[in-house]
Amino acid sequence: MHVAGIDIGGTNTEIGLVSREGNLLFSETIPTTGHNTPEDFVREVVMSIEKGCAKHNAQLSAIGIGAPSANYFSGSIEFAPNMPWQGIIPLVKLFSAALNKPAFITNDANAAAIGEQVFGAAKGIKDFILVTLGTGLGSGIVVNDQLVYGHDGFAGELGHVIIEENGRQCGCGRKGCLETYVSATGVVWSARDLIRSGKQIAGITSIEHITARDVATAAAQGDLNALMIIDETARKLGFALANAVAITSPSHIFLYGGVAKSGDILLIPTRKYFAHYLLRNFAGKVKIELSMLPDNAAVLGAAALAWKEISP
Amino acid sequence: MHVAGIDIGGTNTEIGLVSREGNLLFSETIPTTGHNTPEDFVREVVMSIEKGCAKHNAQLSAIGIGAPSANYFSGSIEFAPNMPWQGIIPLVKLFSAALNKPAFITNDANAAAIGEQVFGAAKGIKDFILVTLGTGLGSGIVVNDQLVYGHDGFAGELGHVIIEENGRQCGCGRKGCLETYVSATGVVWSARDLIRSGKQIAGITSIEHITARDVATAAAQGDLNALMIIDETARKLGFALANAVAITSPSHIFLYGGVAKSGDILLIPTRKYFAHYLLRNFAGKVKIELSMLPDNAAVLGAAALAWKEISP
Repeated sequence: MHVAGIDIGGTNTEIGLVSREGNLLFSETIPTTGHNTPEDFVREVVMSIEKGCAKHNAQLSAIGIGAPSANYFSGSIEFAPNMPWQGIIPLVKLFSAALNKPAFITNDANAAAIGEQVFGAAKGIKDFILVTLGTGLGSGIVVNDQLVYGHDGFAGELGHVIIEENGRQCGCGRKGCLETYVSATGVVWSARDLIRSGKQIAGITSIEHITARDVATAAAQGDLNALMIIDETARKLGFALANAVAITSPSHIFLYGGVAKSGDILLIPTRKYFAHYLLRNFAGKVKIELSMLPDNAAVLGAAALAWKEISP
Repeated sequence: MHVAGIDIGGTNTEIGLVSREGNLLFSETIPTTGHNTPEDFVREVVMSIEKGCAKHNAQLSAIGIGAPSANYFSGSIEFAPNMPWQGIIPLVKLFSAALNKPAFITNDANAAAIGEQVFGAAKGIKDFILVTLGTGLGSGIVVNDQLVYGHDGFAGELGHVIIEENGRQCGCGRKGCLETYVSATGVVWSARDLIRSGKQIAGITSIEHITARDVATAAAQGDLNALMIIDETARKLGFALANAVAITSPSHIFLYGGVAKSGDILLIPTRKYFAHYLLRNFAGKVKIELSMLPDNAAVLGAAALAWKEISP
């Protein structure tokens, strides 16, 4: 028995067949864009799943989908800013009708949290927060073994906690959201600000083409300005995480995604600032760790959602 | 059938017998202090419960306890700063042994949240936050019909979310916690700061004896400086609540306790600032209301905990 994991991104969609143990039997990537309608897109994904099942003689049990702005309750993608389709796209209905199997959807950060719980470092952990550090900052919050969806399915927007009043302009329309500082975009912003102020970062020659990886690389090589950016990023992350712990009291926080891959260089100062800002009640009780999921984890997370629903 | 609700405060303990419908059959208040040992205190509370049961011919089903620093998981009060006893006091064990009935304990803010859900304005509401505004600021957070305890039982410390880096010194040892601004203590602090800066508040003559009620009264009578204090208190509360909503996405927030009793004068600007700081996804979806529980609600909250456990 296998489930299909579908990770829908703004550019590409990855499709995988995943066993209960997390083994990836088959995977394929197709463009998310270039389809006239969501139905056309679903048809192509379904063909890929059927091809995979046929090739490996696998039996499909369910479909799990991870996508930005996806709502677990409604089974739809709702008004996703970076998707080729507008409005409400009822993917659960479309996939379950096409494949005659139960389908489940959640947003990408929630899928990552469930993936971590089913296949990764959060196995057996009932209260944790997973933070995805990529272009933006997402989060999946698990309380008493259940993902926190909130009344409308949109809980877990840690990236949009305001940490700096009248701070950086966020894409959400407000100012000072955590993700404007702590994300690849935020790190690049900090690097540009620093270079504009007349300072330099080793290896960065053009202000236009900076990446967060450039900054992490310079920091790893000991560049003091790059280290200062990472330190300030870690400070803001540690601060926001300490505040989040006061609300849901997790035993673990997992950092996941591209920016988290910078590893100890971000992790160590984040732990330091987190301890500094943490309420004493929680001192020493909350571990911050890197995700144990591999790079292609998004499809595993989507598959984990399906497994958790059909065999919890 | 009745349960005993026991609300343990630093000074007094209220004991009540409460029906499933929330009717208070009997209540009595005894001093929390003046007992040599926790066992002596428990003995006196048990006598009061037995007296109430005998007088009203009531049958006891369970015991619910609300107390500061109480831990639902361990069944104990743990290192409460304002209690007559130090260390860990295993009240659940002591009461269930003495009365031979199941006993449950939680902290006072969580008990208030459960009381609101079982007997008050939160009936039928599955995702909400209750904020207690008294000397300090406490909170009980309900997600998917369950109180959020977190891994250690100490979740829901909204009063200790830092909203102002290097802000006011908090009793917890850190600076800028929400409750140093938004609480009776916080309002008095603001009033003193304002008077020390040379301004005046109508009706307040002594800087030593200000109460939050004095400030609310002056504001209700149109005193601009008092209104400014209430407005800034509401702004900080609205800000912190908007950030909390991004984490658990409740449909309702209830304000409970002495400071909340100032009513519209705090509620209306709190709603305004909350809307201002709220992530657009949640706009128009989250109501802030005053608690519907009466003044003696703490004992109802403690009783509600017991009812929720034995007949959910």
